[in-house]
Amino acid sequence: MNLESLDLHSLQTAYRDGGTPHELVRVLHSRMEARGDDHVWIHRVPLADLLAQADRVMADKAAGKKLPLFGVPFAVKDNIDVAGMPTTAACPDFAYVATATSPVVQRLMDSGAILLGKTNLDQFATGLVGVRSPYGAPSCVFDARYISGGSSSGSSVAVAAGLVTFALGTDTAGSGRIPAGFNNLVGWKPTRGLLSTRGVVPACRSLDCVSVFSLTCDDARAIGRLVSEFDPADPYSRERPGATPALPAAFRFGVPPPSQLEFYGDTEAAALFASSIERLRSLGGKPVEIDFAPFRETAELLYSGPWVAERLAAIQPFFDEHPQSLHPVTAAIIGGGSRYSAVDTFRALYRLEDLRRATEASWKRMDVLLLPTSGTIYTHAELAAEPVQLNTNLGLYTNFVNLLDLCAVAVPAGFRSNGLPFGVTLIGPAFTDDPLCRIGGQMHRALGGRIGASKTEIGALPAPAPTEARTIHLAVVGAHLTGQPLNGQLTSRGATLVKRSRTAAGYRLFVLSGTVPAKPGLVRSPGVNGPGVELEVWSLDEAAFGSFVAEVPPPLVIGTVELTDGTSVKGFLCEPFAVGSAVEITRFGGWLAYLGNVSASGGIAVPHAPVVR
Amino acid sequence: MNLESLDLHSLQTAYRDGGTPHELVRVLHSRMEARGDDHVWIHRVPLADLLAQADRVMADKAAGKKLPLFGVPFAVKDNIDVAGMPTTAACPDFAYVATATSPVVQRLMDSGAILLGKTNLDQFATGLVGVRSPYGAPSCVFDARYISGGSSSGSSVAVAAGLVTFALGTDTAGSGRIPAGFNNLVGWKPTRGLLSTRGVVPACRSLDCVSVFSLTCDDARAIGRLVSEFDPADPYSRERPGATPALPAAFRFGVPPPSQLEFYGDTEAAALFASSIERLRSLGGKPVEIDFAPFRETAELLYSGPWVAERLAAIQPFFDEHPQSLHPVTAAIIGGGSRYSAVDTFRALYRLEDLRRATEASWKRMDVLLLPTSGTIYTHAELAAEPVQLNTNLGLYTNFVNLLDLCAVAVPAGFRSNGLPFGVTLIGPAFTDDPLCRIGGQMHRALGGRIGASKTEIGALPAPAPTEARTIHLAVVGAHLTGQPLNGQLTSRGATLVKRSRTAAGYRLFVLSGTVPAKPGLVRSPGVNGPGVELEVWSLDEAAFGSFVAEVPPPLVIGTVELTDGTSVKGFLCEPFAVGSAVEITRFGGWLAYLGNVSASGGIAVPHAPVVR
Repeated sequence: MNLESLDLHSLQTAYRDGGTPHELVRVLHSRMEARGDDHVWIHRVPLADLLAQADRVMADKAAGKKLPLFGVPFAVKDNIDVAGMPTTAACPDFAYVATATSPVVQRLMDSGAILLGKTNLDQFATGLVGVRSPYGAPSCVFDARYISGGSSSGSSVAVAAGLVTFALGTDTAGSGRIPAGFNNLVGWKPTRGLLSTRGVVPACRSLDCVSVFSLTCDDARAIGRLVSEFDPADPYSRERPGATPALPAAFRFGVPPPSQLEFYGDTEAAALFASSIERLRSLGGKPVEIDFAPFRETAELLYSGPWVAERLAAIQPFFDEHPQSLHPVTAAIIGGGSRYSAVDTFRALYRLEDLRRATEASWKRMDVLLLPTSGTIYTHAELAAEPVQLNTNLGLYTNFVNLLDLCAVAVPAGFRSNGLPFGVTLIGPAFTDDPLCRIGGQMHRALGGRIGASKTEIGALPAPAPTEARTIHLAVVGAHLTGQPLNGQLTSRGATLVKRSRTAAGYRLFVLSGTVPAKPGLVRSPGVNGPGVELEVWSLDEAAFGSFVAEVPPPLVIGTVELTDGTSVKGFLCEPFAVGSAVEITRFGGWLAYLGNVSASGGIAVPHAPVVR
Repeated sequence: MNLESLDLHSLQTAYRDGGTPHELVRVLHSRMEARGDDHVWIHRVPLADLLAQADRVMADKAAGKKLPLFGVPFAVKDNIDVAGMPTTAACPDFAYVATATSPVVQRLMDSGAILLGKTNLDQFATGLVGVRSPYGAPSCVFDARYISGGSSSGSSVAVAAGLVTFALGTDTAGSGRIPAGFNNLVGWKPTRGLLSTRGVVPACRSLDCVSVFSLTCDDARAIGRLVSEFDPADPYSRERPGATPALPAAFRFGVPPPSQLEFYGDTEAAALFASSIERLRSLGGKPVEIDFAPFRETAELLYSGPWVAERLAAIQPFFDEHPQSLHPVTAAIIGGGSRYSAVDTFRALYRLEDLRRATEASWKRMDVLLLPTSGTIYTHAELAAEPVQLNTNLGLYTNFVNLLDLCAVAVPAGFRSNGLPFGVTLIGPAFTDDPLCRIGGQMHRALGGRIGASKTEIGALPAPAPTEARTIHLAVVGAHLTGQPLNGQLTSRGATLVKRSRTAAGYRLFVLSGTVPAKPGLVRSPGVNGPGVELEVWSLDEAAFGSFVAEVPPPLVIGTVELTDGTSVKGFLCEPFAVGSAVEITRFGGWLAYLGNVSASGGIAVPHAPVVR
């Protein structure tokens, strides 16, 4: 069984080639044993139990159960409940044995995934470093002198080191992104409420998200589709809106000006970020300089304001009764939550609304925001010397995301000359998770290179199927063309031009009489071998398309138009009664060419051509 | 100039009959003088300034300015800024002269409205009673022994007493609804953020709304359309979503079970509420019993939890420096805000999310919620004896609305035998303001009786034009008809059957060959005088229509179909090429009649009729 890379495609190929879940868990168990105490796990599932899980998925498969994650190994951050296992949140005195499995984990197991264990974290998910744990500090998979990042430290290393296909983390400030950046991984921080947080030890309950670490964006999307499920028992769960926004092909991405970027002297990181901008541009994106100041100020609110009281609220009265059970840095941070009053809290909420409004100006100008996942990376030694300030540095590009109700995906963005990875994060409005991960996947593919710490190249994996966007393509042939009088009916609805093309040969174009503004009528005539009619294909979302069609006056109709390449889109056609005595202009090959001719010939009508039905 | 009632229709009629704004302001000034010190006003605009405003609107009109509120008199609660006038919030020591006019007031003045003054209120808008003010306590217009309700006490009495056409209030707990109920008025509490709160002295800034008191729901809607404007400078302002939900004709309205209703011994109020349920049922509503408990618990959070700290945050440091400047009851309430910590606040926010989720079960079963505006009404004497508890009683049906992000409209619901009015409130999800006010208007009309304290009957006013819903009507003639194989494409999109009808005479129907399921094609042929083709008109919202049209396969198209009554709707038509050799079945008058014939004749095709183009 070839288990060089555990990405979903490679793993599924290994199963198709005859591998079995039993073989898989034996291999992975050996790998974990071989690593010794790598501080990745707080609770490892014993081999016997792994084999029992393998038995179970085999039996389920034999019973015909649908198992989209058949035999896929995964890990769970140890602040998420799995029934029968201890949940420690990296605080042994706080630990309890969970009696129920969190819905997200349950859904994964029901889909055939195999749980390898619970992973280490910054205690109570407070930190971005991965060193604030009595269970030890995992290290970056590429250099043990460097930190793994946190708080989802163990989850990230488990994926990068090839111990699991994916791992669940949590993300309140950036805990699902920073360790992805440090370990050459994808880290998806979903829209708040998209994944149930039931069964999670809260950090800031109003901001917490369950997150996913994976080797590729395609894997994150596949897992995301499975676990994005409304949970009525989680008051913070949200229903996905009916129409999720798709990104236009010519999307705009925001980037802070150089003066607002901070790499803490890491010039190679700066260069890698600059090349990320170029990479995203090469994928059709248009860079837009935005003001990062209100984002940065929001980021600062998270730890310098009353939100730390949420961390205290989450573990009182335990905190009050066992203050010395906590990691000293964690205790200092969480204890600070008692300093804030209700008045402070509401004032901070008002400030957040001010900042949110201030960021809206940028969101009007961009579809996604591109940032470094972190400005730099630190060694264990550096962090020990300055445990709080360096942690704060790491949050600069992450801490505002949950407060502003955004979603994000951290993706690999190359390596420094010392072999340490650099990452960037794509950030978008709530519920743009899927287009965000799609673009992230394109960036990853355009970057190339190996996934995680494996030897498998991202380019060796099949590209995802083309997007199934919830937009509708509409062909226009007359007054709605760019520059023509009714084009505003499209642009005012947010429509975007997809391409210019022609109809197939079997179409005729007529000048409709008595329309204001002047309009042509397109009629399909299968027997005719004409030049095709020039058209533009525009993309609209469903509601915009619906309101547009509702305004189409007779004799025009919306039907299906075949293009010269044999594909079909929705498009303008004309009722037959209206072309009975109309002038045919098919030979001009399009409305603009006809208009040009009329104009050039002083407005004299073109020769009357016989109408063919 | 007939100024018996100042409702918009009567006033506009008076202007059409030759009245002038100058005449109006003189009459109203006399009315105010005649009332003596009624405690309604904190600042009255002097006659000379009223006449100057009359000059201004006359000049603007002469200049051709569009003035939808030409010469309409209004009042503003004295916690809303008007440049050059003092804003007191009913606390003289707090007062300041405003340097800018709040955007809502500005918009009204720009629309031709004339400001008569700033009105009294429960100090800092804290209270539902109208007696917590050093400027005196206004009284119910129907019986001076009774309170006016508050906190927007002066605004409600000014409208009910015929001093203004409408008045602005504010509403955090019910301040825009309780006084409407006590004075036989309409009180619209808009969706949070729909009207800018810039220039308002905050009560709970995260919950505050500017509200409208008027004599009719139509007036509230007219004013609402003018002032519902996104304000980028108000961080709590919200953009109205593209498609606002319309209420189905057969809407469901929630009512608590009798065991959860509380009228504090006011049996006539209970009877009036019961008859309101019947009235709403007679208008097409279907009553649904819902669990009021989570709504009631939410209501209790507002004053028994950390939200009182918002009131403190709003006026600190003034409060700390001048505690004795406040009304003693108000000081006690607001001072209580300092008791709560940030931890308390987040815990209360979590509890609110729990309760919100608990109410969602009811919202899945109802379109609107019908409640008493208040269970009963109190005398000044009763209130003086029990100033806090009776105020709390009044908030039972109002306090949860802003916390749960709902909108509401209080409407008149009849009179007790002692001549005191009773009111009910319709409550709906955010942004359902317009359908809510429309139903409220229908209830008011169905109730009958005089508006405010005037002698004008609601029935004497013209009914509003029928609704301009954002839905699209679609005519189907074949496989999408009720009972036919593709009807589910409509019903699964939430489409509703509007009516059965026929096309105009100039249409032909053909059997398309080779379609599965079998489908007809409709073609407009203006010269033909056929029997018309039977059809169904279905209603869909824009997005549903858009997604439906996107799935229409060729040769079918969506165009415009003329009905037998001369009106037109969107509808299925067919490309001409496809009917070239198709069988015409126009003479059957419809697809179902044709199918019946085919079936009756053992499936033998009908005689081939020549195709007419």
